[in-house]
Amino acid sequence: MQKKLKDIGEFGLIKRIAEAERIFDKEVIVGIGDDAAVIKYKEGRYLLLTTDMLIENIHFDKKATPFQIGYKSLAVNISDIAAMGGIPKYALVGLGLKKETSVKFVDEIYRGIRSLAKKFKVKILGGDTVASSKMVINITLSGEVEKKYLTLRNGAKIGDKIYVTGALGGSILGKHLSFIPRVKEARYLVKNLHPTSMIDISDGLLSDLKRVCEASKVGAKIYQEKIPLSKGVISLAKKKKEDPYQLALTGGEDFELLFTLSHHPPLYPLPSREGKAEEGFILPSKVHITQIGQITKRGIVLLDEKNKIIHLRKIGFDHFKDVGS
Amino acid sequence: MQKKLKDIGEFGLIKRIAEAERIFDKEVIVGIGDDAAVIKYKEGRYLLLTTDMLIENIHFDKKATPFQIGYKSLAVNISDIAAMGGIPKYALVGLGLKKETSVKFVDEIYRGIRSLAKKFKVKILGGDTVASSKMVINITLSGEVEKKYLTLRNGAKIGDKIYVTGALGGSILGKHLSFIPRVKEARYLVKNLHPTSMIDISDGLLSDLKRVCEASKVGAKIYQEKIPLSKGVISLAKKKKEDPYQLALTGGEDFELLFTLSHHPPLYPLPSREGKAEEGFILPSKVHITQIGQITKRGIVLLDEKNKIIHLRKIGFDHFKDVGS
Repeated sequence: MQKKLKDIGEFGLIKRIAEAERIFDKEVIVGIGDDAAVIKYKEGRYLLLTTDMLIENIHFDKKATPFQIGYKSLAVNISDIAAMGGIPKYALVGLGLKKETSVKFVDEIYRGIRSLAKKFKVKILGGDTVASSKMVINITLSGEVEKKYLTLRNGAKIGDKIYVTGALGGSILGKHLSFIPRVKEARYLVKNLHPTSMIDISDGLLSDLKRVCEASKVGAKIYQEKIPLSKGVISLAKKKKEDPYQLALTGGEDFELLFTLSHHPPLYPLPSREGKAEEGFILPSKVHITQIGQITKRGIVLLDEKNKIIHLRKIGFDHFKDVGS
Repeated sequence: MQKKLKDIGEFGLIKRIAEAERIFDKEVIVGIGDDAAVIKYKEGRYLLLTTDMLIENIHFDKKATPFQIGYKSLAVNISDIAAMGGIPKYALVGLGLKKETSVKFVDEIYRGIRSLAKKFKVKILGGDTVASSKMVINITLSGEVEKKYLTLRNGAKIGDKIYVTGALGGSILGKHLSFIPRVKEARYLVKNLHPTSMIDISDGLLSDLKRVCEASKVGAKIYQEKIPLSKGVISLAKKKKEDPYQLALTGGEDFELLFTLSHHPPLYPLPSREGKAEEGFILPSKVHITQIGQITKRGIVLLDEKNKIIHLRKIGFDHFKDVGS
């Protein structure tokens, strides 16, 4: 039988493409396999390039407003630039639209894009607009980063502590359409705390942690009860009668930063709350960072409060595989 | 009644976006409104960025092989970089695919992309792959150009001669899936003949000429019988019992270069053929360039061999408008 995409999954496909695409070019620092590509640029700086495609009924549904669709399509790209330690700069917008689409709808998409572009001083330099039976939006974003601040997925070392920004889970409740990409936080981190690795959580904490571990050739242990849960995920779990940690570990589109530090961060510690094992710090932007685990030699394990291994049912979101596989 | 995209058309939409997107950034040389965006880069060079979205049943149909789809999706972007006088460098590939797509089909798309990438030394640096009910492919390409060789749409001057490379029309017969982007020719032109303006013919000769005229604030007269017709368009016109010139003037996706010169090019002239008013030259790559008209003060007119104005039924391809409107 011929292999289908749903058999090898999104990660399988990316690996397949990356393996065929070994790049031998002295100008290319990083090709396929990080949040953005890294290319030689001006003195002391690298150029970053990233692209994301959003499709109707997959990344947004009928309930999403055109403003939200535009906003999200730029936000996911800014998040990728942030995860490299960089500053977003220029965007190109590819839009596939039905002929019957109202001009007002398109204006609203652009209003969403521009509202975020303005906030992060991103300039929209052009794009391509074509007819399509389903709506598609593909934004490509360039950015730049000082060479010394470039932070990749492949630098995590055994013994490093693992942190996340903000709180996880429940992005399905709407946060994925309105989140603020963590540029300010990432810039603070690369300038002051020098993370050994960093990634944005787009496909789920465990899924993206796996990427860091594979790239860094290490393993990780995560203390489940240390994972900062969003208010949304707690109420969602109650409603669905599911474990909120399971939702937070595997839910995609949180767009928080996952990073590793080799040292104790010189920051204000989070006030300890009774009955809560939170261990973290407050960034100057008031966003919390929480230590959720540690880098190990190999394998990814999830531990309960008694340090017992919790079985992982599924590891995250894959565009081509069905949930649970 | 609410305005629909099909009412304002693709050009109407682009104008609408460009007007709202006035850019005041000293790093941006050209934003929306040319074949590629132009940004400050290394000493003596500009960075070029362009993106194109191709959609199933619009830009390719079931008869196109996945190899051809991949090939074309990169070729249209390389053509944009060529039209700026630049050299293509790095590509990002956004792919929307059905879950049922075979892995072999995706491999073939990439084989098509790579075959052309290799020819032009383009490196594929990454991308995004998502599930989609219709196939979508969106390639973003960066390039670079020496400052002195950058050629825009807005430099045509009254009295300049108008040229095209190669022969026009009939791309519908398959050339649009296998054309070789005119990088070599464009590079020769910018280094040796210094065109005052240049564009690639993606939406039809008249349609793209209109863009040059609008950007340069000039007009143009085109001598219909001077237009170099492809063999394909001559046989197609016979079959369809249509005027081959009409097809060549309005057919999209030729991906030849349209450019203007202020002087007589110091090149080998084309051998004159009996009964043929061809007036052109041979580039070192053996590709012909043909003079088809002249830049005027205003308006675009098409003239027959007796210098009489030919009525223009339609001016080119618009993604959102129906043919003939």
